[in-house]
Amino acid sequence: MADERLGPQVAFLREADRLKGVLRRSYVLAGGRRENSAEHCWHVALAAILLAEHAGEPVDVARVVRMLLIHDLVEIDAGDTFVYDPAAHVDKAAREQAAATRLFGTLPADQGAELEELWQEFEARQTPDARFAASLDRLLPMLHNLWSEGASWREHGIRLSQVIEVNRHMAEGAPQLWAYIRPLLEDAANRGLLARNGS
Amino acid sequence: MADERLGPQVAFLREADRLKGVLRRSYVLAGGRRENSAEHCWHVALAAILLAEHAGEPVDVARVVRMLLIHDLVEIDAGDTFVYDPAAHVDKAAREQAAATRLFGTLPADQGAELEELWQEFEARQTPDARFAASLDRLLPMLHNLWSEGASWREHGIRLSQVIEVNRHMAEGAPQLWAYIRPLLEDAANRGLLARNGS
Repeated sequence: MADERLGPQVAFLREADRLKGVLRRSYVLAGGRRENSAEHCWHVALAAILLAEHAGEPVDVARVVRMLLIHDLVEIDAGDTFVYDPAAHVDKAAREQAAATRLFGTLPADQGAELEELWQEFEARQTPDARFAASLDRLLPMLHNLWSEGASWREHGIRLSQVIEVNRHMAEGAPQLWAYIRPLLEDAANRGLLARNGS
Repeated sequence: MADERLGPQVAFLREADRLKGVLRRSYVLAGGRRENSAEHCWHVALAAILLAEHAGEPVDVARVVRMLLIHDLVEIDAGDTFVYDPAAHVDKAAREQAAATRLFGTLPADQGAELEELWQEFEARQTPDARFAASLDRLLPMLHNLWSEGASWREHGIRLSQVIEVNRHMAEGAPQLWAYIRPLLEDAANRGLLARNGS
């Protein structure tokens, strides 16, 4: 009985290894190479542990961590979608749902259903846990940019107004974190790391 | 008040980024490059979620995940110590304790103390949570070797007897996982991926 479940679970872990090959737009500080999605998932789950006290609403930290550990697995099939690329977002939901169905569908049925529902909850951002998880998922790329003199922002010509538009839902999920980052974004724009509208 | 804590917490997240530059002996499947410790921490925390039902004793999965997310942070200062290198293990505990003191000491005192104690619990392997976490931490490198035709085992001339010696504590923390992996190790030795004693 254990073996019937272990086989697909171990196969899932092997498939998950591919997330280490999915590159994001952020840069790792040491070495200046691009970050992969597996590293990101670790970093953002660690952030949930460290920053739980700054959630905007009461959250179940363990669920937030669990959500963040699985939130990018769909990228194994669907790839990483750059948050500042509107064209790529047109079919993002459909691509990712197809990936979720395939990936989680390889697990024992009860476990696959539970993890797929958790992923859908993250995506829908309608619960306190999901809102806080999404806020952390937005915080990390901004911190990486601030730590690297706006490396990814400058590379892609990102504007301050775009950053605010895409990330302001943090004001709901993690108002203290949004209040912390907001002046740092303004400062980044003043230093030319983010473009101003029309500039 | 939030800011007094947020400053050191964000600085800790920045420091943690360095774990993405600590290389292990395992190989990532896609690309054949060596795995870094941040990716490993994500993978093994994901394994805790997937394999929790195979723990040898009742465990608090959320604590196991938390433990695994922080268990390698000390490598930022101390580096990764190859499990099959006895010489490197002579001062491992002292190097890693110094790293833990420095790293966790940068956090707000209550939080730093909690995480340092959690790391010490993992290292001591005296609780069900720590025994299960340690078992998963041993399972993943073996799976990586099995998935890559023993790439790291062959590179370092590892013997079956060494693998059994180093990993057999899994029989306590996760007997079903040990029972699963044990014949696969034997098979790997039969196929020459692991050396036999005297061969």
